[in-house]
Amino acid sequence: MRLSPEVAAVRTAVRAALNQLPPETPLLVGCSGGADSLALALAAVAVWSGPVHAAVVDHGLQEGSAEHAERTAKLLVEHGIAAEPVPVRVTGAGGTEAAARRARYTALRAARPTEHSPVLLGHTLDDQAETVLLGLGRGSGARSLAGMRVWRDPWLRPLLGIRRATTRAACTALGVPVWDDPHNADPRFTRVRLRTEVLPLLEDVLAGGVADALARTAGQLAEDGEALDVWAGRAQAACGPTKEGDETLDAQVLARYPAAVRRRVLRSWLLGLGVPELGEGHLRGCDDLVGRWRGQGAVALPGGLELTRRHGRLRLDRAEWDRPD
Amino acid sequence: MRLSPEVAAVRTAVRAALNQLPPETPLLVGCSGGADSLALALAAVAVWSGPVHAAVVDHGLQEGSAEHAERTAKLLVEHGIAAEPVPVRVTGAGGTEAAARRARYTALRAARPTEHSPVLLGHTLDDQAETVLLGLGRGSGARSLAGMRVWRDPWLRPLLGIRRATTRAACTALGVPVWDDPHNADPRFTRVRLRTEVLPLLEDVLAGGVADALARTAGQLAEDGEALDVWAGRAQAACGPTKEGDETLDAQVLARYPAAVRRRVLRSWLLGLGVPELGEGHLRGCDDLVGRWRGQGAVALPGGLELTRRHGRLRLDRAEWDRPD
Repeated sequence: MRLSPEVAAVRTAVRAALNQLPPETPLLVGCSGGADSLALALAAVAVWSGPVHAAVVDHGLQEGSAEHAERTAKLLVEHGIAAEPVPVRVTGAGGTEAAARRARYTALRAARPTEHSPVLLGHTLDDQAETVLLGLGRGSGARSLAGMRVWRDPWLRPLLGIRRATTRAACTALGVPVWDDPHNADPRFTRVRLRTEVLPLLEDVLAGGVADALARTAGQLAEDGEALDVWAGRAQAACGPTKEGDETLDAQVLARYPAAVRRRVLRSWLLGLGVPELGEGHLRGCDDLVGRWRGQGAVALPGGLELTRRHGRLRLDRAEWDRPD
Repeated sequence: MRLSPEVAAVRTAVRAALNQLPPETPLLVGCSGGADSLALALAAVAVWSGPVHAAVVDHGLQEGSAEHAERTAKLLVEHGIAAEPVPVRVTGAGGTEAAARRARYTALRAARPTEHSPVLLGHTLDDQAETVLLGLGRGSGARSLAGMRVWRDPWLRPLLGIRRATTRAACTALGVPVWDDPHNADPRFTRVRLRTEVLPLLEDVLAGGVADALARTAGQLAEDGEALDVWAGRAQAACGPTKEGDETLDAQVLARYPAAVRRRVLRSWLLGLGVPELGEGHLRGCDDLVGRWRGQGAVALPGGLELTRRHGRLRLDRAEWDRPD
């Protein structure tokens, strides 16, 4: 029997991603029963020589979710995958979407057969495109547009270059029943509206290819970000403390670097010293002490902290108004 | 009389941009008669100590455009600006939008009062947001998302941080009549659909702040791109020719740099050697000769060229199939 082109495409992508792993590593696949993660699990067991496990997370948020997880696990077991339902309790702040995500990732990490096992996730090129659009709204530059990474230990996403339509066609070709999560059509979720309203309109207005372009952009920006982080690491070392216990930064050395490097150094140095958060405005104020120095005073930062420049070095202190008398 | 906050905001932005210029430099403002460029011209003459000229470009594409340009020039002259209508002929390929843009930029460059005069353009934060969205569709990474620059000699865009609503309110406060170009509402133009359909939908779905976020993103990506270009310049020098007339590149030295730097070096080196264009796939193939070297053969490039690696160096040649026998 000839393999359908979609099944072949999914397997090729999974094989390429697993290529980096030591042979025989036991894998865990996070599987919802939807087309993406089903196609992923079936491709993994087809191409991988080591044991393939699957965890079917049951968030307990919908009627009959326990039975659905049982059914999906049974289907996977029939295909040679060591699958089990994993019930989780979704609690805490941040909206159902974020809370469910947190609970799911914690459960998947714990369900790995060994501590060296990666967790394979079924995110596709379409998910990546939606992630980039979500990041656009945050407006924090390359960091928020770089999307998801193929490999961020222990998470492995082999399908980031595969369209959602391909995983569905692969499941159809393999004759496995696919579950459509009703949450994936619920317009109360931002991601659902990006998928069903914004992306189709952008495709129309920009004459097609938008999802591919967004995914390609994410990949390039991720590489750009990595390179700049390398440079910023070296720059931070070059203007770092001169002796043990010194926590100042040499502003005159830092001023020789391009703005993008300076901002990354300042960001990582300040967060490392305990500044709880840094907005665009804060960073600009701090960088002015470096790049537009004209003797200005302290820059107020969140957490009752302030940054001052003295004798050519930057120094973080508790703000004067926040100090005990 | 108190200045309206919108007039004050536009003037502050223009003052900040003109700060970088030698005092008394004669300026040219490109003015269509629309709210953005009118507000810009009136702010320039209010804050600048040197002479302010304006060119009202008449593209000759709409009924009555010559009269409109005359009227706008007259209005500007009444406000102390040396304004003249500048008729241009729009010809050539690339669609009316691109052809009109080309003709306009050529005419504005020529209309400068001195060769050191900048040309002030009225692009706003909203134009910048649209430019980023246009770039998203191209998917060529940071380069296409970095948008317009405040200063790219001779073009100076002081209003990139100002909303379109602000320039309009400024004109109203100053009592000057504003012209609404019918092209700005014509849905045959991609930019118009981005403005009237995509951005409002994104604002709704992402709960606001999208135009600001896109503009902020553009600014940060522009800085990232500048820094990476600096690094790439140094890297290219480090793996460049060993002697006069040698046009090869040291692949082993290049391999030590991060992927984002390697790609920029390869891109600039290959375009410099006359490769007419480089797609994502070409660049990836070329970079594989550096970063994933396993003895592979030549990489075919546009223009009948091919890149080979031999003795650790990259070399661009006319492709074998394209050589005369």
